[in-house]
Amino acid sequence: MSEFALIDLLHARMDSARGDVVLGIGDDAALLESRAGEQLVACTDTLVAGVHFLPDAAPADIGWKSLAVNLSDLAAMGAAPAWALLALTLPRGDADFVAGFADGFAALARANGVALVGGDTTQGPLSITVTALGWVPAGRALTRSGAQAGDAVCVTGTLGDAAAALALRRDGTATPDALLARMHRPTPRVSAGLALRGLARACIDISDGLVADLGHVCTGSGVGAELDADALPLSAALHGAFDAAASCDFALTGGDDYELCFTLAAQRVAEVEARLGALGVPVARIGRIVAGAGVRVADAQGHTVAVPHAGWEHFSP
Amino acid sequence: MSEFALIDLLHARMDSARGDVVLGIGDDAALLESRAGEQLVACTDTLVAGVHFLPDAAPADIGWKSLAVNLSDLAAMGAAPAWALLALTLPRGDADFVAGFADGFAALARANGVALVGGDTTQGPLSITVTALGWVPAGRALTRSGAQAGDAVCVTGTLGDAAAALALRRDGTATPDALLARMHRPTPRVSAGLALRGLARACIDISDGLVADLGHVCTGSGVGAELDADALPLSAALHGAFDAAASCDFALTGGDDYELCFTLAAQRVAEVEARLGALGVPVARIGRIVAGAGVRVADAQGHTVAVPHAGWEHFSP
Repeated sequence: MSEFALIDLLHARMDSARGDVVLGIGDDAALLESRAGEQLVACTDTLVAGVHFLPDAAPADIGWKSLAVNLSDLAAMGAAPAWALLALTLPRGDADFVAGFADGFAALARANGVALVGGDTTQGPLSITVTALGWVPAGRALTRSGAQAGDAVCVTGTLGDAAAALALRRDGTATPDALLARMHRPTPRVSAGLALRGLARACIDISDGLVADLGHVCTGSGVGAELDADALPLSAALHGAFDAAASCDFALTGGDDYELCFTLAAQRVAEVEARLGALGVPVARIGRIVAGAGVRVADAQGHTVAVPHAGWEHFSP
Repeated sequence: MSEFALIDLLHARMDSARGDVVLGIGDDAALLESRAGEQLVACTDTLVAGVHFLPDAAPADIGWKSLAVNLSDLAAMGAAPAWALLALTLPRGDADFVAGFADGFAALARANGVALVGGDTTQGPLSITVTALGWVPAGRALTRSGAQAGDAVCVTGTLGDAAAALALRRDGTATPDALLARMHRPTPRVSAGLALRGLARACIDISDGLVADLGHVCTGSGVGAELDADALPLSAALHGAFDAAASCDFALTGGDDYELCFTLAAQRVAEVEARLGALGVPVARIGRIVAGAGVRVADAQGHTVAVPHAGWEHFSP
């Protein structure tokens, strides 16, 4: 299949229409309406075969996840997603792969009102880079730098499921569907991010692992954090597959959760629980921001829990 | 070298400051000021090692070119570049490569006032995806769809140099520096694109080859084109390295030129020559738009010149 036939195939399966797309796929660049009083929010993330997804992953899951990891970054800023650009590098002009990929990508795009407005299709080792663009009212974005000592630390959803699924798959062990779904089709917390505007003081999405990502918030805000190991939200599926210590490790350092970790004034926790609860998004209060630096994890007796490794990093020795 | 050390190294060598960058590298996404009365212009392009550049290419040249191919797309829209995001996939945490890459990228970014505002660094086969963002006053963008029968067809600069350099390098033949420079460090025609607003009726940048790219304009505009082979602008270096027929082939189908091909009312050619000449950008009138479809090339006697292949396409058999 030729490059232009592949682009036509992608295009036919994607939603490219939004009222604010002046000119989408098919020219040298996309033309998009700007918004008065809002700020543009832009991010880009790459998935590489064998690094970010297993070589036998379903094309539709790869398509979904390539957009999900980017929408998760927009969610962490409190931004409303609008448009995406897709750079798809494929070893072969494989129509089945492209059709499946497009279906997965389009399903998540549609659920979030995102239009695909441009991209590039090239030949090479399988890799996908998506750029997501969205909007936030000026001055209302959530960042990593606003956490204050005394803030409560909260997370959405449950932690550790995707990392646990990957560990089971790598061991060749039967993997519960509930865990697999979390690895293959993470749900970016877009509506939660919007609801946290004006409520959260700092926010980040958990891609590298809770301790590592909360560490970025601490560094950005000039504070430290204490987490209560017993308060970590763990799924029934994770509990069923691993003992308490292993489950805790996955939740602290596994990564690939694409949940939001945020801080807010302690007296507003009930308000955030109500607001996110109304959206069907569970919230757990897992610790507090303190003066100092770094992330400490404590058990029910207040003893420090050893964290096995700091989180995912490329090019680690 | 770790991922975060690489990001710090990239960041230190890049210009990330512009007055309209609210929050650049270092959070989940960049926050950027929007512009009233303008439209956002967005594009993304990937370079893969061994496909878009030779495996022994200098890192600085790869950095330059990864941005150049994107700024060329913005130029073809008549857009003013503003920001870029960089997704860099590297086999190893190679500080020398990253430093060289960053220097080449930054040199071109600085020349065009572009701030690097975000990105992603991952481990995998060498590949670079850049997303470029810019602005154009609403309704003033140049597109592929405005060409009219009777328009003159013009191009900036000279054609075929980069493709000729690649052919010589692949044959192991000594390659003139003037041709190598055009392959390694193409100059996106940003100022020319801005000057063509309100003057060109259609515009495209030449990446796949003149005949193929002008063909996209013809398709987009519902017209045909006739080119005069004798009018193609060829460099002295190309003339020195190849005979007339081979030079003409490179100019028609070689690609990787990153010059602009545009159409305009025939009576405005003198005006465009003056306007672009004042910017130091040579312009050649190479043919005309006609009713019909497709691109025909004629020699001085009016005989049709055979075009050997339609232009670069990935996944071709």
